[in-house]
Amino acid sequence: MKEFELIRQIQQATCVSYPPGFDHGVRLGIGDDAAVLEIPAGQYLVAATDTLNAGTHFPAETSPFDIAYKCLAVNLSDLAAMGASPRWALLSLSLPQADPEWVRLFSEGFVSLAQAHNVTLVGGDTTSGAMSISLTALGFIEPGRQLTRSGAKPGDLVVVSGTIGGAAYALEMLKAGEPVPERHLLDRPQPRVGLGQLLPGYASACIDVSDGLLADLGHVLKASASGARLEIEKLPHTAVLAELEDKSRWRYQLSGGDDYELLFTLPPRHEAQLATWSQQLDIKLSVIGEIESEKGIRCLAKDGTAYVPQGTGFEHFRQKP
Amino acid sequence: MKEFELIRQIQQATCVSYPPGFDHGVRLGIGDDAAVLEIPAGQYLVAATDTLNAGTHFPAETSPFDIAYKCLAVNLSDLAAMGASPRWALLSLSLPQADPEWVRLFSEGFVSLAQAHNVTLVGGDTTSGAMSISLTALGFIEPGRQLTRSGAKPGDLVVVSGTIGGAAYALEMLKAGEPVPERHLLDRPQPRVGLGQLLPGYASACIDVSDGLLADLGHVLKASASGARLEIEKLPHTAVLAELEDKSRWRYQLSGGDDYELLFTLPPRHEAQLATWSQQLDIKLSVIGEIESEKGIRCLAKDGTAYVPQGTGFEHFRQKP
Repeated sequence: MKEFELIRQIQQATCVSYPPGFDHGVRLGIGDDAAVLEIPAGQYLVAATDTLNAGTHFPAETSPFDIAYKCLAVNLSDLAAMGASPRWALLSLSLPQADPEWVRLFSEGFVSLAQAHNVTLVGGDTTSGAMSISLTALGFIEPGRQLTRSGAKPGDLVVVSGTIGGAAYALEMLKAGEPVPERHLLDRPQPRVGLGQLLPGYASACIDVSDGLLADLGHVLKASASGARLEIEKLPHTAVLAELEDKSRWRYQLSGGDDYELLFTLPPRHEAQLATWSQQLDIKLSVIGEIESEKGIRCLAKDGTAYVPQGTGFEHFRQKP
Repeated sequence: MKEFELIRQIQQATCVSYPPGFDHGVRLGIGDDAAVLEIPAGQYLVAATDTLNAGTHFPAETSPFDIAYKCLAVNLSDLAAMGASPRWALLSLSLPQADPEWVRLFSEGFVSLAQAHNVTLVGGDTTSGAMSISLTALGFIEPGRQLTRSGAKPGDLVVVSGTIGGAAYALEMLKAGEPVPERHLLDRPQPRVGLGQLLPGYASACIDVSDGLLADLGHVLKASASGARLEIEKLPHTAVLAELEDKSRWRYQLSGGDDYELLFTLPPRHEAQLATWSQQLDIKLSVIGEIESEKGIRCLAKDGTAYVPQGTGFEHFRQKP
């Protein structure tokens, strides 16, 4: 298959059907030197890029469907963490060879998530090389409404959506050659786009959990010049993780990463919103701690004793010991 | 070096100083989940992504300075081919290891070109993996002014900027282990940003020469449902290529690619603009042929005889014979 055929195949297979009256804003899409896009009047552009490399970000045998799904999901998760509405994507696809069946499944995975959020693929390129997928997600937000990492204040509640630790547990089972009970948590994370759009005006800071809860909370605390108390018994998890010993489960939950849940801080006067949002979106929202003026993260077990976790989250280029 | 240090190093080393009164539009830059950007009122966003892989798009021993330079250049060239004004970039950097000196030189190369066009790096990510650089360039254009590939009409002049064939010749000399007289043509292509911004309202179609003159002209002709006559003796080249035999030079010029010059079509009533633009920008602009209604490309030598070129340009995933 030639490059141009490959691009045409992706273009055709990733078409999204829009709701009636929806303006996708694409004034010129795939097939020219660049895309031309109209942002709704008075909105700011929001842009994020994330790359997934085979063997680093997903196991080499991951299905093409799931590779595409996850690549779009992690980028939409970044936009969600800003409170933005996603609209467009650009895709850079490096592949060792151009296999039409691989591309067909990849496109299916892409469009299955793109369709759910009315995201249009508007450009990109295909190259031969080690398998690597780089995606840029573009969206928009009303000026001043963006959720940053820097607004958390002492007394704010620390809230996380969904469950955490499951993706890291699935990855570890997979690596160990054990049965993987909840592989979808690893392969098809759900970007919390709807939740992100509800938070502006309420949440004081927001981030998505990609590096691990402690690492990502650490980013918020650093940007907000504050600390936090975490009640680790309140960290939400699925039934599968309930079967693990506490310290083993906590390790996945605190340091695992790859959850792509939203971690946000909320002034306590807005606490009642949590039940409303939770019901509206059918998403679990858990208060797991509180922002404090004292720097650092203090993890407390149910009996109030301090728990000192090991490891702080995934990092590329970690120094060798 | 850890990932966060790497990002901080890149962030600090790629800062651009702007002209007085210039608004870079960055409302939130590197350091959060996504960038928040303000597009000038009434403008459309223009977005392009291109990836360069070591060994495919640049020789593995290319200097980090030149890798960064070229990666930004090829993306700015895509925006130039639309007539757009570049403004921001997002960078995805996959590296086998995080070497501070490599990153320092890479950042220098990036900023040397970014500074020339007031382009701000607003986001991206760094991952460990095979060396691959994926860049998204963002800019803007007044609605309806974008240069597409589809507007060429019979009778329009075919015009190319600068010289062509030199990058392909440099690459071939490099591969053969011969001295490379004009390696800058390969490593530091000049995106024709200023020229691109002058063309809207005049040029009927535009593309940048990346795959090779015949291949890229072919894209314009396909989109414009027309053909062209090329006078190959008029193809512009540097003094180095003048020393080659005609057919050897023509091969580099017609099929070589990597020139990143603008190839555009111009209604003949605007021909006088060429001298004006050429003087204003100090760029050579050469009329090399004419759009015709008959499909296909006809290459004519000086004596009017037909010349049938071999090969039509670089393509990834070419079928093996």
